[in-house]
Amino acid sequence: MTDTPIILNADQVAELAPRIDLAHELRAMFAELGQKQAVQPSQSVTLFPEDRGDFITYLGAQGTAGVFGAKLSPYLVTKDAPIITAWTLLMSMETGQPLLLCDSGQLTTERTAGTTALAVDLLAPESAKRLAIIGSGAVAQAHYRHACKLRNWSSVTVYSRSLADDIAAQDTWRALASYIQFASSPEMASDGADVVMLCTSSGTPVIDTATIGANTLVTSISTNVAQAHEVDPAWLNQAQVYCDAQATTPDSAGEMVLAARDHGWSKEAIMGDLATLVTETCPRPSQGKPVFFRSIGLGLEDIAAAKALLSLAKQSS
Amino acid sequence: MTDTPIILNADQVAELAPRIDLAHELRAMFAELGQKQAVQPSQSVTLFPEDRGDFITYLGAQGTAGVFGAKLSPYLVTKDAPIITAWTLLMSMETGQPLLLCDSGQLTTERTAGTTALAVDLLAPESAKRLAIIGSGAVAQAHYRHACKLRNWSSVTVYSRSLADDIAAQDTWRALASYIQFASSPEMASDGADVVMLCTSSGTPVIDTATIGANTLVTSISTNVAQAHEVDPAWLNQAQVYCDAQATTPDSAGEMVLAARDHGWSKEAIMGDLATLVTETCPRPSQGKPVFFRSIGLGLEDIAAAKALLSLAKQSS
Repeated sequence: MTDTPIILNADQVAELAPRIDLAHELRAMFAELGQKQAVQPSQSVTLFPEDRGDFITYLGAQGTAGVFGAKLSPYLVTKDAPIITAWTLLMSMETGQPLLLCDSGQLTTERTAGTTALAVDLLAPESAKRLAIIGSGAVAQAHYRHACKLRNWSSVTVYSRSLADDIAAQDTWRALASYIQFASSPEMASDGADVVMLCTSSGTPVIDTATIGANTLVTSISTNVAQAHEVDPAWLNQAQVYCDAQATTPDSAGEMVLAARDHGWSKEAIMGDLATLVTETCPRPSQGKPVFFRSIGLGLEDIAAAKALLSLAKQSS
Repeated sequence: MTDTPIILNADQVAELAPRIDLAHELRAMFAELGQKQAVQPSQSVTLFPEDRGDFITYLGAQGTAGVFGAKLSPYLVTKDAPIITAWTLLMSMETGQPLLLCDSGQLTTERTAGTTALAVDLLAPESAKRLAIIGSGAVAQAHYRHACKLRNWSSVTVYSRSLADDIAAQDTWRALASYIQFASSPEMASDGADVVMLCTSSGTPVIDTATIGANTLVTSISTNVAQAHEVDPAWLNQAQVYCDAQATTPDSAGEMVLAARDHGWSKEAIMGDLATLVTETCPRPSQGKPVFFRSIGLGLEDIAAAKALLSLAKQSS
């Protein structure tokens, strides 16, 4: 008879999630991917009938860890705000049986921030001192938590459109880091920054890339908006470009699609991705030209996070 | 807080499965599909690293029923026989929360047979009397169970390569139907039959189509073998062809792919599928030419079966 899989709802995940060593898990997973021990199919979007929303299916298989599975993330149109959830089913490559079914709302935020943090660790100079964060919500806060120990930051500056008027959010940030500074414009935040993490749900550029320093690393994440891009697509021709997964990201990241369509940029110009960076099979960035890292989010990140959660849940039970 | 989803292992499913009214569920689901209230994406195959097998992901969404989900079915290479499992995660289009996680090994057999039975009900003459079954394993037995009440069969004849030497299988069939007859060749089984159900895992033709009667319905199912086909591809030019899902089946059913490649057959020749048959928006077969129905198996069938199982599990708890 099969063992019953472990089920973890959002509260149970919230209790365990802070103990996941996501930096380790993601690095190990991208090493597996670089060594062709892991497999990353493209994500797929299924539209619900009658404009009722959609669901995205994220798949992945980690051969060394011996797990595979799917995250299903529906976007459900309602009379009020849309409902967005995410659940991951993790299965065993040894037995074919389910191991874990977990709420992945929080885990999606964590793995997105953890992936950016891995890129910062791999791409930013060891001497990086000044960190800027554009965006101030839960995703931006997670980015700070995952990035705060990567370098010996002397300053961390946050900007978002809503932050000046949002005392509660300011308090949250001060609780995260007493030395945090709030900027009154994105350019003021990024001025002199070694690393700028864009953590917004914007569909259009959130920063004037003309103000980005010659040796600055800019990171950018994905949102649901069609052709969403947090930077000017034309700027890709000025930058050393990396991404999370070279096989799939350039065909869906908004600024890459637009840069290729309108600005003579080619995905051949991408210097590497997390798998090739971790396995040291791509060039490192050189001095004198800004670096751009773009993630769209991978099913394998969800699988790696769920696998780590399962280990913790087993220890706790 | 979310309700905990119901988990059903193989034994629990086995207890409930005989009470599912699959004929009703599948007919309702195909009607939803015909009315564009249900959505059927293509299935996807993900290869595991190092030739360790693969897993197939079957997706579907039923808008009227308000459920969507995925079946994951891995094929795991081992030193001995491969391990094949299937689990379905059913989620709510209202809340975005999981409703059910169930073992779908037996359900896959049942929904495959139930789908063929629906096709027999929709395509065979009301007066059909003689039923032939090629194949004698669990899938063939399920086909008989689902088809036995559809018409007033005067004879049911079974043939498989192994049946003559397998006394236990013969006893199983006699327990299913005391009037069952065993044939010594597929052509002997199909001789004079109104309906011939091919229920094998063969990758090559299992019957000489030259012996198929002018008004006979032949049904055929899918297996894992690449370009698997239970009938001669050239025969499609002689038949009135139907399938489970016109949008996807002709690009993956072996005999259709080969008939298009080698025998001048075109998928434009397909007369209808289960959605258009149920909603009466395609031509019915006419007399004087055999009818061929081919299924590859749809995620929506897995969703419909899981949805019915969930209703029963809720009643039982």
